[in-house]
Amino acid sequence: MSGNIFGSIFKLTTFGESHGPSIGGVIDGCPSGIEIDIGEIQKDLDRRKPGQSSIVTQRKEPDQVTFYSGIFEGKTTGTPIGFAIHNTNQKSKDYSHIKDSYRPSHADYVYDEKFGIRDYRGGGRSSARETASRVVAGAIAKQFLAPVTINAYVSGVGALKLKSNPSEVDLSKIEDNIVRCPDSKMASEMESLIKNIRKEGNTIGGIVTCIIKNVPVGLGEPVFNKLHAELGKAMLSINAVKGFEYGSGFMGTQKKGSEHNDLFNSDGSTKTNYSGGIQGGISNGMDIYFNVAFKPVATIMQNQETINSKGEKVKMHGKGRHDPCVVPRAVPIVEAMAALVLADFKLLKRTNKI
Amino acid sequence: MSGNIFGSIFKLTTFGESHGPSIGGVIDGCPSGIEIDIGEIQKDLDRRKPGQSSIVTQRKEPDQVTFYSGIFEGKTTGTPIGFAIHNTNQKSKDYSHIKDSYRPSHADYVYDEKFGIRDYRGGGRSSARETASRVVAGAIAKQFLAPVTINAYVSGVGALKLKSNPSEVDLSKIEDNIVRCPDSKMASEMESLIKNIRKEGNTIGGIVTCIIKNVPVGLGEPVFNKLHAELGKAMLSINAVKGFEYGSGFMGTQKKGSEHNDLFNSDGSTKTNYSGGIQGGISNGMDIYFNVAFKPVATIMQNQETINSKGEKVKMHGKGRHDPCVVPRAVPIVEAMAALVLADFKLLKRTNKI
Amino acid sequence: MSGNIFGSIFKLTTFGESHGPSIGGVIDGCPSGIEIDIGEIQKDLDRRKPGQSSIVTQRKEPDQVTFYSGIFEGKTTGTPIGFAIHNTNQKSKDYSHIKDSYRPSHADYVYDEKFGIRDYRGGGRSSARETASRVVAGAIAKQFLAPVTINAYVSGVGALKLKSNPSEVDLSKIEDNIVRCPDSKMASEMESLIKNIRKEGNTIGGIVTCIIKNVPVGLGEPVFNKLHAELGKAMLSINAVKGFEYGSGFMGTQKKGSEHNDLFNSDGSTKTNYSGGIQGGISNGMDIYFNVAFKPVATIMQNQETINSKGEKVKMHGKGRHDPCVVPRAVPIVEAMAALVLADFKLLKRTNKI
Amino acid sequence: MSGNIFGSIFKLTTFGESHGPSIGGVIDGCPSGIEIDIGEIQKDLDRRKPGQSSIVTQRKEPDQVTFYSGIFEGKTTGTPIGFAIHNTNQKSKDYSHIKDSYRPSHADYVYDEKFGIRDYRGGGRSSARETASRVVAGAIAKQFLAPVTINAYVSGVGALKLKSNPSEVDLSKIEDNIVRCPDSKMASEMESLIKNIRKEGNTIGGIVTCIIKNVPVGLGEPVFNKLHAELGKAMLSINAVKGFEYGSGFMGTQKKGSEHNDLFNSDGSTKTNYSGGIQGGISNGMDIYFNVAFKPVATIMQNQETINSKGEKVKMHGKGRHDPCVVPRAVPIVEAMAALVLADFKLLKRTNKI
Repeated sequence: MSGNIFGSIFKLTTFGESHGPSIGGVIDGCPSGIEIDIGEIQKDLDRRKPGQSSIVTQRKEPDQVTFYSGIFEGKTTGTPIGFAIHNTNQKSKDYSHIKDSYRPSHADYVYDEKFGIRDYRGGGRSSARETASRVVAGAIAKQFLAPVTINAYVSGVGALKLKSNPSEVDLSKIEDNIVRCPDSKMASEMESLIKNIRKEGNTIGGIVTCIIKNVPVGLGEPVFNKLHAELGKAMLSINAVKGFEYGSGFMGTQKKGSEHNDLFNSDGSTKTNYSGGIQGGISNGMDIYFNVAFKPVATIMQNQETINSKGEKVKMHGKGRHDPCVVPRAVPIVEAMAALVLADFKLLKRTNKI
Repeated sequence: MSGNIFGSIFKLTTFGESHGPSIGGVIDGCPSGIEIDIGEIQKDLDRRKPGQSSIVTQRKEPDQVTFYSGIFEGKTTGTPIGFAIHNTNQKSKDYSHIKDSYRPSHADYVYDEKFGIRDYRGGGRSSARETASRVVAGAIAKQFLAPVTINAYVSGVGALKLKSNPSEVDLSKIEDNIVRCPDSKMASEMESLIKNIRKEGNTIGGIVTCIIKNVPVGLGEPVFNKLHAELGKAMLSINAVKGFEYGSGFMGTQKKGSEHNDLFNSDGSTKTNYSGGIQGGISNGMDIYFNVAFKPVATIMQNQETINSKGEKVKMHGKGRHDPCVVPRAVPIVEAMAALVLADFKLLKRTNKI
Repeated sequence: MSGNIFGSIFKLTTFGESHGPSIGGVIDGCPSGIEIDIGEIQKDLDRRKPGQSSIVTQRKEPDQVTFYSGIFEGKTTGTPIGFAIHNTNQKSKDYSHIKDSYRPSHADYVYDEKFGIRDYRGGGRSSARETASRVVAGAIAKQFLAPVTINAYVSGVGALKLKSNPSEVDLSKIEDNIVRCPDSKMASEMESLIKNIRKEGNTIGGIVTCIIKNVPVGLGEPVFNKLHAELGKAMLSINAVKGFEYGSGFMGTQKKGSEHNDLFNSDGSTKTNYSGGIQGGISNGMDIYFNVAFKPVATIMQNQETINSKGEKVKMHGKGRHDPCVVPRAVPIVEAMAALVLADFKLLKRTNKI
Repeated sequence: MSGNIFGSIFKLTTFGESHGPSIGGVIDGCPSGIEIDIGEIQKDLDRRKPGQSSIVTQRKEPDQVTFYSGIFEGKTTGTPIGFAIHNTNQKSKDYSHIKDSYRPSHADYVYDEKFGIRDYRGGGRSSARETASRVVAGAIAKQFLAPVTINAYVSGVGALKLKSNPSEVDLSKIEDNIVRCPDSKMASEMESLIKNIRKEGNTIGGIVTCIIKNVPVGLGEPVFNKLHAELGKAMLSINAVKGFEYGSGFMGTQKKGSEHNDLFNSDGSTKTNYSGGIQGGISNGMDIYFNVAFKPVATIMQNQETINSKGEKVKMHGKGRHDPCVVPRAVPIVEAMAALVLADFKLLKRTNKI
């Protein structure tokens, strides 16, 4: 398996299986001199951790990060930042139901085909537990990026959609409810929906919107590594993501040029922002915003028919404690991945001119 | 500027400005022994080239590719494949209207801010002319990938949408009309719409759908470099793209797990294909399909108010010959980028096991 | 700081400062299905560890490796292999003599200039302690490479030189003495020399020779990433290395073509091997051999005059337990780096042909 | 074949076979705003080109470079710089003597084994003709690096050695003779030696020394990508190179620490420079100097016995016009590769600190 490294200068490498002893990572290329607030890192981990509210998985996992290197006397030294999150919830569970069987719409089957061997304990490397390492690295990237702010929130659960313009949303309200939707009325509808879905033993998809403010002009490399292309890859690399759109997105396909063009103000800002803060792959200083589509979690508490590794039909019923809807916990992951992309481009930008 | 290289093993580097003497590229990492049909390459270039029909830009540019290396006696040798497309349409035009002014929703402003210098002739490096080099490389990748087939088609222009299941579309009909929509009735509606838009001096967005068949199980690296994450990046790196979704995509966010899970047949294939041929970032052997959203072209034949490099208001009116809608010409570009992604993962897959 | 990642497919990322809580690394791109003998890994670590004999530093550090991921039921799974070596010898020492002063021919001065901050505890990231992580990864690479064998030995200490042809050395004798020189008489002379040097409070340089057998034809990428270019980089990346030569090396510059050319046997092997097993950057199946030059350790137990961070002259006297000569402990590091290079090229080779 | 790309930010990709229509390359990551003196580029090409004097190959090849992109109104724009050198000396020669036979100590045999196909015309990709593209890119890198100066010269031909301290050599004399040795007496001895060797139909090896002045402190990434490790790789990637040493090099292995340590002056410079301007992998501001060992050219004008692709013995006699000694023409190549390394690290250095 390749592809456990993300970024071109500010590079995160992650390791770890969901039910192994530890997960963690190494950040290579982090500049020296960043004052690190460890509390802020843990805060983001806590927003991602299981068991945080009644609408997420009830698994208990404190997700406490230990740093091994790269931070000295409160600052980054420029050397690689190694860290681990040790698993405390490693009880010897019974995995016999998934050891030789393939859960529908999971990665079990393809892993077996691809690698000929699979760590069947709880999803192994394909589990979203890996994203905790991304949240650690993203939280460091955020501290490097200040005063850029990156805020994600839940804008859709099933058919429920928050239609507000991302630049007008009151971001201070995101953490006011367990859904992480900044509109309290919509949040409460979403919460009810998720609870009903869970009662059914079912799951439901949703949408996370992210908005990035105070972005300097000039981030993004304009051909293959367009800012939105890297953001898209970053988001699509998160478990369960099925789609990405920025600025006017899919709705923009229905617009005419005369409606869609963002006319300039004299200071280079634009009167509208269908471009989503990015033109020609490069940030233009306006708010960057994008939507990320998450499918429903594949593990459901219902009977499903599936096959085992011999191709025989077997019955399967979800076990354990799973999320009925991932979007509330996906919010900090989306922010973290966005932060990694921006941190990398912030460094690359320094190499643009003589 | 970084980011003119795409891929990890099968790597394409491109160069060239729209109105410079030549564009071109180098493919590094192409395996030896591929029999190359130059005619097939030129065919894809012809599908992308300007002037090919009444609904695309009327610029004349033959886009003939010259190979300099890496192909010997009809086969790839494994050495880098260097190629160029020489510009024949380099008449010394008057660029004064864009030299010091910023076209709305173009990259002029951000280039000036980022690089402090800009090749203002016709968009320079930010022009979609660069994608011709991608088409060349993609056509070679396709020949390496056989019997995998990659077919893109237009599924949306403005509000007109082709709703068919991509796996059931008659792909042989794509090239039957100038829109490249496989449904002849829809194609003719789209054609009319584009012609009306052009008469207005306006432009309109659209959607390209791509379907990939005969994919082996096991392509894609399951963490940051998921197959769909790289496909997403590849598509979002194409000029004017605003969104990407695969499989159930944004609609999948509204589904329940019990509806969305793809149950297995005993041979490992699945009864449904909401997964879009990819599970956990790895191909599962089912058809891969995805949608790519293109915004309306920014250059319109109407008066617009904009600013110059001093921040002064100026009037601008589009000149030259531009596409009223890019999707018909984007079809081979989408295919090419998909082919580059798959070729890279086909090679990487060989490194999975001992 | 960038550059803590080595390799293109089989990639090692390392982290950790010499006196921080832990050092370690992550291997990304390791194929699945390799049976891992943990004992062999620890054996290589023990060959590198301090305190192993009377001619190396007397620091005590068990250098025990803990694996966090990527190995399951005795085999690699293809997922990243995360590991750490926890420091047990972290007594709160007095670093005041180096905190603000720059040790001659160490990296203190350049780190301060480059990063503006420095983890002054025992050399921090610039310490050769980092190489323990390389030894872990190299030991895994060796298990992947079998039946390729990689053996390094000490061929020079100060003016003492072992002149034997590397292909004729009895490799089974390397570990028979604490110098790791396969000629027992020369080994005992070298041992005496090192002991005398240590009594002086001084240090001495040396040479490590490495020989690789059973190499398949075709490893190495023939332009920038020639096999010997990557081996050279790998060796030069080891602390204290000043030079690299392979095959006929620097002596080959004095030869005529008619003497130096390796004539073929009918099976493709060659009658002589001035090429050092590599032609045009690609292995030809003959033994690969090369020499690595190590300078004398900079820390000496003598008074030296130096400067502090204000540019003031200060006196300095080496403290702690240091190696009088690094080559005995460098032997497994040279092997490890060679193994990483070959493992990477073994995987890349699979992508050469259609 | 991979590995036709060099560098991490300032990246050169090259293409082309010795007897194909063209060779060339693309520089990605070159900053904008560098004033380019095309004459300086051609001057370096002329120092490398065949036929320039009586002691090099008498092949005639003007090696004129054409730029396709990335330079506009005399300055780099930041976009990729594409360029080609078209071969003018492509007469349809008779290659039958090497088509199916393997020249000793050439890459013919390994190419056939590795790729299963080989462009047998004059060495194809394994020819040193490829280095002309490196000289182009290096000449651009030099212009970016000013006031850093990079000068290489011939310090050894066969047994003849120039012993001078590189920092004391009169660099202005290098181009005064056709050997490119700055000591006129030694140059004339070397010239005689090379002429005698050529009369024999033989070839001889040599050494190129390079010295780099005005280097800022802080170039180089201190673990795997040490400045000297990348310089070493760069040099070892040049055809016919067998060894690399910097600073005290192999001689330094015989020194004691007390002799070898470079004591500081109060301004951070050092009284001696055994370190060769690099400590811990990072430039310290002192002169960087290193030696590069070149083997004798393998093509000799004498009868040699060799094998063909069936393993049958055949007689071979060198044809064509070859260099009796490569070092005079290698001088600009060594400089070019050094410039590429430094340019890359100059850009990377900007990412060190917050």
